[in-house]
Amino acid sequence: MVPHLTTALTGPLLTLEKQILDAMPRIEHWFRHQWQEHSAPFYASVDLRNAGYKLAPVDTNLFPAGFNNLNKAFDALCVQAAMSAVEKICPDTRQFLLIPENHTRNPYYLQNVSSLKSILQRAGFTVRIGSLLPDLAQPTEVPLPQGGSLLLEPVQRQGNRLVLENFDPCAILLNNDLSGGVPDLLKNLSQAIVPPPWAGWSTRRKSLHFTAYRQVAEEFCRLIQIDPWFIDPYFDHRSGVDFSQGIGLEEVQSQVADLLQKIRQKYQEYAIKENPFVILKADAGTYGMGVMTIKDPKELNQLNRRQRNKMAVIKEGQEVHEVLLQEGVPTFETVEDSVAEPVVYMMDHFVVGGFYRVHTERGIDENLNAPGAHFAPLAFQTPAMSADCTHQPDAPHNRFYTYGVVARLALLAAARELEMMAPRFSS
Amino acid sequence: MVPHLTTALTGPLLTLEKQILDAMPRIEHWFRHQWQEHSAPFYASVDLRNAGYKLAPVDTNLFPAGFNNLNKAFDALCVQAAMSAVEKICPDTRQFLLIPENHTRNPYYLQNVSSLKSILQRAGFTVRIGSLLPDLAQPTEVPLPQGGSLLLEPVQRQGNRLVLENFDPCAILLNNDLSGGVPDLLKNLSQAIVPPPWAGWSTRRKSLHFTAYRQVAEEFCRLIQIDPWFIDPYFDHRSGVDFSQGIGLEEVQSQVADLLQKIRQKYQEYAIKENPFVILKADAGTYGMGVMTIKDPKELNQLNRRQRNKMAVIKEGQEVHEVLLQEGVPTFETVEDSVAEPVVYMMDHFVVGGFYRVHTERGIDENLNAPGAHFAPLAFQTPAMSADCTHQPDAPHNRFYTYGVVARLALLAAARELEMMAPRFSS
Repeated sequence: MVPHLTTALTGPLLTLEKQILDAMPRIEHWFRHQWQEHSAPFYASVDLRNAGYKLAPVDTNLFPAGFNNLNKAFDALCVQAAMSAVEKICPDTRQFLLIPENHTRNPYYLQNVSSLKSILQRAGFTVRIGSLLPDLAQPTEVPLPQGGSLLLEPVQRQGNRLVLENFDPCAILLNNDLSGGVPDLLKNLSQAIVPPPWAGWSTRRKSLHFTAYRQVAEEFCRLIQIDPWFIDPYFDHRSGVDFSQGIGLEEVQSQVADLLQKIRQKYQEYAIKENPFVILKADAGTYGMGVMTIKDPKELNQLNRRQRNKMAVIKEGQEVHEVLLQEGVPTFETVEDSVAEPVVYMMDHFVVGGFYRVHTERGIDENLNAPGAHFAPLAFQTPAMSADCTHQPDAPHNRFYTYGVVARLALLAAARELEMMAPRFSS
Repeated sequence: MVPHLTTALTGPLLTLEKQILDAMPRIEHWFRHQWQEHSAPFYASVDLRNAGYKLAPVDTNLFPAGFNNLNKAFDALCVQAAMSAVEKICPDTRQFLLIPENHTRNPYYLQNVSSLKSILQRAGFTVRIGSLLPDLAQPTEVPLPQGGSLLLEPVQRQGNRLVLENFDPCAILLNNDLSGGVPDLLKNLSQAIVPPPWAGWSTRRKSLHFTAYRQVAEEFCRLIQIDPWFIDPYFDHRSGVDFSQGIGLEEVQSQVADLLQKIRQKYQEYAIKENPFVILKADAGTYGMGVMTIKDPKELNQLNRRQRNKMAVIKEGQEVHEVLLQEGVPTFETVEDSVAEPVVYMMDHFVVGGFYRVHTERGIDENLNAPGAHFAPLAFQTPAMSADCTHQPDAPHNRFYTYGVVARLALLAAARELEMMAPRFSS
């Protein structure tokens, strides 16, 4: 099932999709060349926004959860891609230690860990789950919502190796974004660890990602000769901000005003009848925390205590001092009258699936990845990496091809972002 | 749907399958290492025989037809694997010239060419079909049995490039086994050509393939500690044979007797109550031509003219002077009371699908790939590269995992075989 586009806005998107489909051999050739120059992260998910006139990534997650939401029929794609990823990054690996997030109270997250474990097992690895939970004294079975259970085991440090009881893994797969910083346990290990701990949110910045994405989008759009704005939202960033003290908000306000002005000009250029808005979010934030929508810079003068606190502190109690200001891309995809946002999953440089985050209570200009919010995952019914030119550009697998292309551009941006970070962080 | 094993013989096969499933992480690690040392052919299909007590490859095709028989639901696996294959072998390719067999009167073969073309297109390539048919004067549309048509275009030589009208391809994909020899048109080309023309049947020999397979099987069986005989049929070969003149048949007869004796000993060792038989086939043969079943060496004294002629001349009028003698592996898989033989398809080193060749009129000890014979392709319903240890070893996707392992062993043998041939043939 593919969400319906609001009919009034199908025109320009069809143009973009058609341009991408027509250029498919050139695009794939370009990607092949890029992947020879840059190493894809082990895995990633990309949140896309489809505004009809514009299709853009709004967030790239290097520690993706949600593998349980993918269409089971395409598990084999994940298995095949996982084999490729391991061949390239840690070919000698036989035994993986999978380190999940600590929020074991979220049964859906645990189901994701179970799905990831199953993918790696089916790719031919022995997998055990090592938990960083400080109060996990012994191996503990936690029940899964879809039946069965998951064994969480406390990790132990032995010299420069991370082990479990009777298990010395060859490599460590992180599914924990390390928002609270890299724990000493994970420092100076002799084992391969993917993604690198410094790709976690204690050191990663969305602004660097979108700086890399801007460059990728420019190169790509030169290739297929379109205005990069159709796939790249304007953004800006600001450090030294303190929401609780009100420090730095004036500067943010003026940046928001500049962004809104730039968006307004583009809307005029392309005769788009929307109200521009800006998304303000923590530059190192995740889980949809620390995100707000701004339509008028004045709103920043009128923040109440609750709104300030919501922006000031995010996951694992981290204070926010750096913010990303991002052109808002409204979503015009709907599923049964609710707003929907596609999320695309990749392993190695392959698209392995995706789903729609569907929100019944949110508007088209709001963040759908909100804590505590309900969303109905809706698995893509066709794979997202292959197009068929004999069908219409908006046929399901052709629409998904376009999604897969834009998601892979964000993946390539992540690869370049990690290259830029490596000299500072990798030992 | 998985064919039922004759119940009396499930025991030993379950043992073999269980051994393979238990060793899965070790096996996959071993394959990863092998694929770092050896380059997988672009694509291949492997005919397997499952005797219950024994599971073995009986033929490995480097120019596989039958892509149209694979389960459409797993097309994306082919597309992903095709991307990998191209990245490794000819990364700069944008435009493929696909050269099919000349038997354009076989509509199912044309459907295969159409499936291959579609896979490559969806992997992001421009594909056109270049025919070697000498009497094809101009581009010709041929109708496909499932609707639509295929445009065959005459190939032209321009200097050291093979081109079509207004089409200068970066690479050439052969789906023609060149039984009649490598045409001058294909010699000394500046374009990449995969598989190499010398992998065709004018230079390739089954006996060299099974020599390489023997070594692979020995290494693999040392890894999982089983008798290699469980996956490796005995074989022998003989050159200087002339069936029409009766030359060399005495030597063949004595080799057949030796093979039957060796098989009998193994049958005794494992208490197998079957009648041993040997398959005699052209060492460079294909399309199921030039194949006979021998249960008693005396049969070779009693060949009538028709039988001699059948063995003497095969595809494209090639005379047979070299024969392979192969331990017969009976098939105990049946589909609706007809004998069935699994065929596994691979691209790069990935298993991408398979189907059963089902034959209503043949016995369990006969060749099912017979010219003119009817077979009902039955696509595997689950992918063949991932196992799930929480299910029984004979659950469909676990059975297919075992098939995928043995097929990949044959693929690895083909990789080593081509390495052995390369110094003599590649320029």
